[in-house]
Amino acid sequence: MVSVGDARDPVDRSRTVGEVGERRLIAELTRSSRALDVTHRPPDVVIGSGDDAAVIDSGGPTVISTDTAVAGRHFRFDWSDPRTVGARAVVQSAADIAAMGGRVTGTVVSIACPPDTTVGTVLDMNAGILDATHRLGGRVLGGDLVGADEVVLTVTTVGALDGATPIVVGGARPGDLLAVTGSALGASAAGLALLLDAQRRGTDELLTEFSGLVAAHRLPAPDLTQGPAAARAGAHAMTDISDGLVEELITMAAASGVQLSVAGDRIPVSDDMRSAAERLGVDLRDWTVTGGEDHELLGSFAAGSVPPGWTTIGEVHDGTAVWVDGRTVQDLQGWQSFGS
Amino acid sequence: MVSVGDARDPVDRSRTVGEVGERRLIAELTRSSRALDVTHRPPDVVIGSGDDAAVIDSGGPTVISTDTAVAGRHFRFDWSDPRTVGARAVVQSAADIAAMGGRVTGTVVSIACPPDTTVGTVLDMNAGILDATHRLGGRVLGGDLVGADEVVLTVTTVGALDGATPIVVGGARPGDLLAVTGSALGASAAGLALLLDAQRRGTDELLTEFSGLVAAHRLPAPDLTQGPAAARAGAHAMTDISDGLVEELITMAAASGVQLSVAGDRIPVSDDMRSAAERLGVDLRDWTVTGGEDHELLGSFAAGSVPPGWTTIGEVHDGTAVWVDGRTVQDLQGWQSFGS
Repeated sequence: MVSVGDARDPVDRSRTVGEVGERRLIAELTRSSRALDVTHRPPDVVIGSGDDAAVIDSGGPTVISTDTAVAGRHFRFDWSDPRTVGARAVVQSAADIAAMGGRVTGTVVSIACPPDTTVGTVLDMNAGILDATHRLGGRVLGGDLVGADEVVLTVTTVGALDGATPIVVGGARPGDLLAVTGSALGASAAGLALLLDAQRRGTDELLTEFSGLVAAHRLPAPDLTQGPAAARAGAHAMTDISDGLVEELITMAAASGVQLSVAGDRIPVSDDMRSAAERLGVDLRDWTVTGGEDHELLGSFAAGSVPPGWTTIGEVHDGTAVWVDGRTVQDLQGWQSFGS
Repeated sequence: MVSVGDARDPVDRSRTVGEVGERRLIAELTRSSRALDVTHRPPDVVIGSGDDAAVIDSGGPTVISTDTAVAGRHFRFDWSDPRTVGARAVVQSAADIAAMGGRVTGTVVSIACPPDTTVGTVLDMNAGILDATHRLGGRVLGGDLVGADEVVLTVTTVGALDGATPIVVGGARPGDLLAVTGSALGASAAGLALLLDAQRRGTDELLTEFSGLVAAHRLPAPDLTQGPAAARAGAHAMTDISDGLVEELITMAAASGVQLSVAGDRIPVSDDMRSAAERLGVDLRDWTVTGGEDHELLGSFAAGSVPPGWTTIGEVHDGTAVWVDGRTVQDLQGWQSFGS
């Protein structure tokens, strides 16, 4: 990471990163971060951003995960404003902490961007990163800022277990119940489908009608406090749904050495999703079963232990397959970065 | 981060990332990582890679820092092989942990690369990352793999303090001595100058003669155990030299509210550096004072407390300026990513 000296006057937001230079921009990022951070200084943070490294102490093990989002591949600036792009990068990284049963304590962030990126774009991405981290109860601990040909955001999130046992993905046991968080699994995929449809047809009509689904794609808002809640409830296995439900089921089944069976009509969906699927003429299960990036949690619990706020969608059996509505789904594929 | 299922047969190294797909390549990365990792499993690691997130417990605070390296900007594949590129990304991130007085416990890694990157290139970068992390006493805890237009490596390193107080950059006190680690400060800059000269003149002659300097540019090898050693010696301030000595002096002076004075001829240099400077007709101080990326450590110690292996190069006084050989250096600039 970079150390920064004193911050100077605010930088003109319309200037480019290349014009302003790395040192000046980092000073401005630090200044704006501190301004946004005054009311929020969790006791875990010993030393925050502005030194070579940060020091954090939650009195126990540290949970850590990293996730990268690339412009044009994982997000589009013509579909999302920079603040939302930054916030989304935090949510997708933080969901991995929740999936271990962890509480988010902090993030470190790398922003790579072309020199002709405006200062305003970088500051807005950073504001989104700060805001999302704060909403999760953590603090932005530091970062790096480098030049690149395209915008690449890497968010590494750390968390605390507060005495809980970490919940691995491979712990599902025959007899368990499978449950998910959230009230609309596949809402992000529905939003993406609406955006692609609007682009194809050249009209924003449906985007206005289903603005909630579009918002769910731009910035998923899973309740990540359900991760620690599941750990307290004794969850046997957990993961976040980042590549579509079926991909996570395949991963959990393989890692646990079990058979998973899900009833498609038990997967929580919203009325908006049903309406949108009808309007677009698509099968709702394209979104609920194979759609990705909601970052809701999938857990495996002993019968009677499913926590409040979770919806039971299936069961765990002896075996190694994954079934949805009585059909195996080994050949179904979720979203993949390098897809052909 | 991504969860992975069972690894399958080794993947053909000459195929591309796009052909093989993200899931298959991650399985292969996990497989090869485990193969390289059997002899090395530090007690800090509770859960390693292969789950949503890793869990690490060193029984105290966690030090964390992130650094990003971009192909064509921070490294060049025509100058460094993929393994060296991976190792270098670890060293530059890990140096920040050492600069706080920390011991490296683990890394998490994001590899972004174009779909036409060969599997072999990715595996070699990963092998370099693993090897460098292991050499530092840590373990690769997890990562992310995504598509991008160019190779972007982000390494986040975590470390432990083992009871030591973290050493900030802003703690230098009047009366302190300034000291650095290593025997050849600016060797990386010398190696870069030699590579640029060889490119300009179209001959590798000097690269062979000064292969040690070229190697120092490709992969700096600071002794990062000197970070915890400095902490045990009661260092008042510390940082790693990543942007050139003068930039770090400016940062330390500003953060500490002190005046720093360095004698250029006390900065450790190698005979190779003297010879190379003569052959290229450049001032040695272009490398020692303004050259960057050695990742050696700069510390401020009470008189009599400079640890073995460090070289005293100057003193700390009341004031706010930085002096080298009696001249202020506020206008000297080190390496900057977004430089015009």
